[in-house]
Amino acid sequence: MHLIVVGGVAAGTKAAARARRVNRDIAITLYQDESEVSYTACGQPYYLSGLVPSREALIIRRASEFKVDGIEVHLRHRVLDLSTEERVIKVRDLDRNNLEVVPYDRLILATGARPVIPAVPGSHLDGIVTLRTMAELDRFRSALDRLRPKDAVIVGGGYIGLEVAESLHALGVTVTIVERLDRLFPRLDPEMGQRVHDYLIAQGVRVIVDDGMAEITENAGRVAAVVTASGRKLPAELVVLAIGIRPNVELAGQGGIALGPTGAIAVDPRMETKVKDVFAAGDCAESFHRLTRAPWWEPLGDIANLQGRVAGENAAGGNARFPGVLGTGIFKTFDLNVGLTGLSEATAREAGLTPIAAVISARDKARYYPGARELTLKLIAESVSGRLLGAQAVGHGAVDKMIDIAATALLGGLSCRDLENADLAYAPPFSPVLSPIIVAASTLSSKLS
Amino acid sequence: MHLIVVGGVAAGTKAAARARRVNRDIAITLYQDESEVSYTACGQPYYLSGLVPSREALIIRRASEFKVDGIEVHLRHRVLDLSTEERVIKVRDLDRNNLEVVPYDRLILATGARPVIPAVPGSHLDGIVTLRTMAELDRFRSALDRLRPKDAVIVGGGYIGLEVAESLHALGVTVTIVERLDRLFPRLDPEMGQRVHDYLIAQGVRVIVDDGMAEITENAGRVAAVVTASGRKLPAELVVLAIGIRPNVELAGQGGIALGPTGAIAVDPRMETKVKDVFAAGDCAESFHRLTRAPWWEPLGDIANLQGRVAGENAAGGNARFPGVLGTGIFKTFDLNVGLTGLSEATAREAGLTPIAAVISARDKARYYPGARELTLKLIAESVSGRLLGAQAVGHGAVDKMIDIAATALLGGLSCRDLENADLAYAPPFSPVLSPIIVAASTLSSKLS
Repeated sequence: MHLIVVGGVAAGTKAAARARRVNRDIAITLYQDESEVSYTACGQPYYLSGLVPSREALIIRRASEFKVDGIEVHLRHRVLDLSTEERVIKVRDLDRNNLEVVPYDRLILATGARPVIPAVPGSHLDGIVTLRTMAELDRFRSALDRLRPKDAVIVGGGYIGLEVAESLHALGVTVTIVERLDRLFPRLDPEMGQRVHDYLIAQGVRVIVDDGMAEITENAGRVAAVVTASGRKLPAELVVLAIGIRPNVELAGQGGIALGPTGAIAVDPRMETKVKDVFAAGDCAESFHRLTRAPWWEPLGDIANLQGRVAGENAAGGNARFPGVLGTGIFKTFDLNVGLTGLSEATAREAGLTPIAAVISARDKARYYPGARELTLKLIAESVSGRLLGAQAVGHGAVDKMIDIAATALLGGLSCRDLENADLAYAPPFSPVLSPIIVAASTLSSKLS
Repeated sequence: MHLIVVGGVAAGTKAAARARRVNRDIAITLYQDESEVSYTACGQPYYLSGLVPSREALIIRRASEFKVDGIEVHLRHRVLDLSTEERVIKVRDLDRNNLEVVPYDRLILATGARPVIPAVPGSHLDGIVTLRTMAELDRFRSALDRLRPKDAVIVGGGYIGLEVAESLHALGVTVTIVERLDRLFPRLDPEMGQRVHDYLIAQGVRVIVDDGMAEITENAGRVAAVVTASGRKLPAELVVLAIGIRPNVELAGQGGIALGPTGAIAVDPRMETKVKDVFAAGDCAESFHRLTRAPWWEPLGDIANLQGRVAGENAAGGNARFPGVLGTGIFKTFDLNVGLTGLSEATAREAGLTPIAAVISARDKARYYPGARELTLKLIAESVSGRLLGAQAVGHGAVDKMIDIAATALLGGLSCRDLENADLAYAPPFSPVLSPIIVAASTLSSKLS
């Protein structure tokens, strides 16, 4: 049996490794169109800022390490075509430039996603960068070294934009963030998003919302300024495009593999596509939300790993299931931690639910213990049953712990009444005597109908 | 209606405040035999070490602040007798030395617990200290200032002993811990407890297990040495007695109020004792374990707060329920964090279950991210269903997060299969791409029958 994996970052390498673990006997070939496999895109902002000093640190495993496990890795090989009827792929060796037709028995698509490049004049000038692959990272780093920008515009106020704002600020670059929507990181409810907005402004970041990018002007072939839809002219020697990503589904399209409503590849809980023996995992694959059961696309590194594991196990003959996602996410911008899980008040209403919410501010350790930091926590629950629907946290310190407790509570279908008496780990170096989760759950309980 | 609360540390003050919040009309009187109310005993080790510089920081609320809420607080008033038939208590004003008989309609016993003083020769010499009340703290501090010990023996390897070991070491004192049982903190399974043992030895602490204290010798009225059961003679200018605590149940006994099998006051989920209109909460009250449903005594500050809230609400006419405990605990000793929740492998077996377990070591952040720390995590589950039974974590960094995720999973009745695909918060500053919880749950899943 020959298993082919297309794509070699998170989902692809995890799938190949898992397949090998489940089945020592199958042949496994992985094609990757980049020069490296198994790197962390999530760590790139910290390499740019210098916090992670070595590019090497971003590489998790090298191609040779997969070889030891009997996984044949072909770097700089692009899979150009797929026939699911004939069960073959067509691969181009990007160095030798030859084409090869390779048959498979099972196929895993882990083709990832790529940044959206907005169709505005000037969007390909020198000084315009994106962040995703190691090649993009290298171009970003080289642009920083060559152009030594004093001013940068980041287009897009999502994860990447807000993380890179920290990186550039750490390098002494003056940062402007331009967001087309009415606020930064709109998956947060407005009052929580406002805290991120206010914080960034306090750090000296210029934040422009409700205004898109209309044009990028040039000076001798290089970026000169971003012009917004409302006519603002923002001079910059560097422009970071971070308006979003789209799944790489061209190969799936060539194979006649159906996409889901989110535009990513539709899969069942076994991560199998609509075409038998073809699996998909990671940023190219669709999932579903555990709370609403609706299709949901969550292109994040941890989900790619989880899905890759399931796809690899099943492609190798196992029977694992991926139970869906909760929409959990977290990022750090400067010293502010921002996390969320489950539904926001807005998405709960869109899903036909009647949410109630409580917002509290609390320290993350006993207030007298050195290093206690303040965070704001919002819990959202169903108004009658009290069943937890979601959580959002913005602040310093243990935002990640709050979100992980809430995500686990969502997995368990817990209500705010369950959480208000939770037996969590308390000692002064770790928590106030009642965790912010307990305080927020208690406030929420008092609002129950 | 007159509500009397006996005891004013965690449970008592919380109960009084909650009762007031639920019912503005009742009279509430709180008797406390110490000079202060509402202090944190858990913070005392950090005041001793100097990490928390001010004694004042340990006081959460003063008596006058309760007055504002219409709660009458009597400091230095000891409740000596209780008649539940006549519904009166007898109180002595420790300053004026007069006795008063006070009627009540509802009563909350929050009399706490006190350190066990072993009945060995010399156990009341100068230089022998305990830690619990503010008066004990003051005596401990004064002993440090007066005696300037070079060597200290800590008798007992539980929470207090291990926390105070850090405090004394920070002050330059050479520490020996003597534990009667075969290992430190025996609620941990042996392989996890061994990590604590080895770590303390690496910090220069002498650890003696399987050996009790037989005698304390003196030199001119002061402590000279601890002599162990096996005959070791351990010279010390300071001896800390931390072999355990016992609930203060004398008053309950005078009132004919039944105790439970743990020796603490038996209560129902409303925190009401076997005598109607008499409630108990905090360290004097028994609870039950949510997993085994068996009586369980968990004298910890967070539980006292939760129980106090329930008792206060119900005494004021509400109908809240305390759902039991999970046996969650955490402490820090030097730079090592140690936490646990639910059942150990040993207690699971004692409860008639068939546990399986997985132990993994992992970093708490992406390995390339500065400040990532290593911890060891053990998950315990039922061998057939995979239902999580408990977790233990020892190490550096986010031990508290691991335990809180596990405790929440226990609340939700989750299995290791649920946890191995959990959508937890991942970004490099917060977690490796797969949380240690996910890695351990996955290892555990692979061991399921």
